Amino acid sequence: MRPTFLVLAAASLSATIVASSRAEEDAAPIFGITIPPGYREWKVISVAHEAGKLNDLRAILGNDIAYKAAREGQLPYPDGSIVARVAWGYEPLPESAEAFGQAQSFVAGKPTNVQFMVKDSAKYASTGGWGFAQFDNGKPASEAVHNACFACHAIAKGRDLVFNRYAP
Amino acid sequence: MRPTFLVLAAASLSATIVASSRAEEDAAPIFGITIPPGYREWKVISVAHEAGKLNDLRAILGNDIAYKAAREGQLPYPDGSIVARVAWGYEPLPESAEAFGQAQSFVAGKPTNVQFMVKDSAKYASTGGWGFAQFDNGKPASEAVHNACFACHAIAKGRDLVFNRYAP
Repeated sequence: MRPTFLVLAAASLSATIVASSRAEEDAAPIFGITIPPGYREWKVISVAHEAGKLNDLRAILGNDIAYKAAREGQLPYPDGSIVARVAWGYEPLPESAEAFGQAQSFVAGKPTNVQFMVKDSAKYASTGGWGFAQFDNGKPASEAVHNACFACHAIAKGRDLVFNRYAP
Repeated sequence: MRPTFLVLAAASLSATIVASSRAEEDAAPIFGITIPPGYREWKVISVAHEAGKLNDLRAILGNDIAYKAAREGQLPYPDGSIVARVAWGYEPLPESAEAFGQAQSFVAGKPTNVQFMVKDSAKYASTGGWGFAQFDNGKPASEAVHNACFACHAIAKGRDLVFNRYAP
């Protein structure tokens, strides 16, 4: 084996190790979920306003499997379903206040965080078949945050743990 | 020509007349816009809550041309852009009240109406290059409703008449 090849092989191995530890760093604790590519362009299941302390506007998006299941009211959601909850600050729209003569239009401001539910009934059998993940500025939230997901979503157990219904 | 053929031809002509008057009936007054197929599955430009009398939750969706322009902040929107504003009733989510201990989650209820803005700078030159349409239960709203669109959207003239910005 020529030295050049050995050097290249070592460089490649080292790149693999870096990529692998970066992937672990990017994965949510407990469930090991990473951000699904292209989720921002998924179809809309529903929209919502979370008042109270969170005070955000949100879109609930689905990959093709989840969107179809939601639209058709299919429960439980099939394996491969991913639901994305995108949220933004709740902000008044100045131009609209001018149009209506009062502040009454609230629009999406800066993004807050993104959450995902990933259906894999075997892998996530102990949490109702769903894995949960939250990312703040692209980085996974803490283990404590992820420990709370299933307990809260269990309230929606009659709807396979998904709070939102399809908005027709 | 055999009588059977004549009867069929007459039936076909009559079907054409019915289809044509149905198309006119389905088109919004003034601007002649019909509901674009598949708009419910377009990508999300932004989401909003319209408080006050309207009190709805809404998603602002774009066809591929409008979505790309919105995402990239391209102004004016290019010809072929269609922006869809879908709206639903603003309703509390019971399961969430249970999760949070108070009513704070408001979700999309029944659909209210759908509005479209269609960019065709030649056809709609007198209204800033945009045609406007509103449909209630699939039927175009009145001419009076359509007469109000441009005047109101003119407030957003600095953003090519589109109130909403892309939510990143």
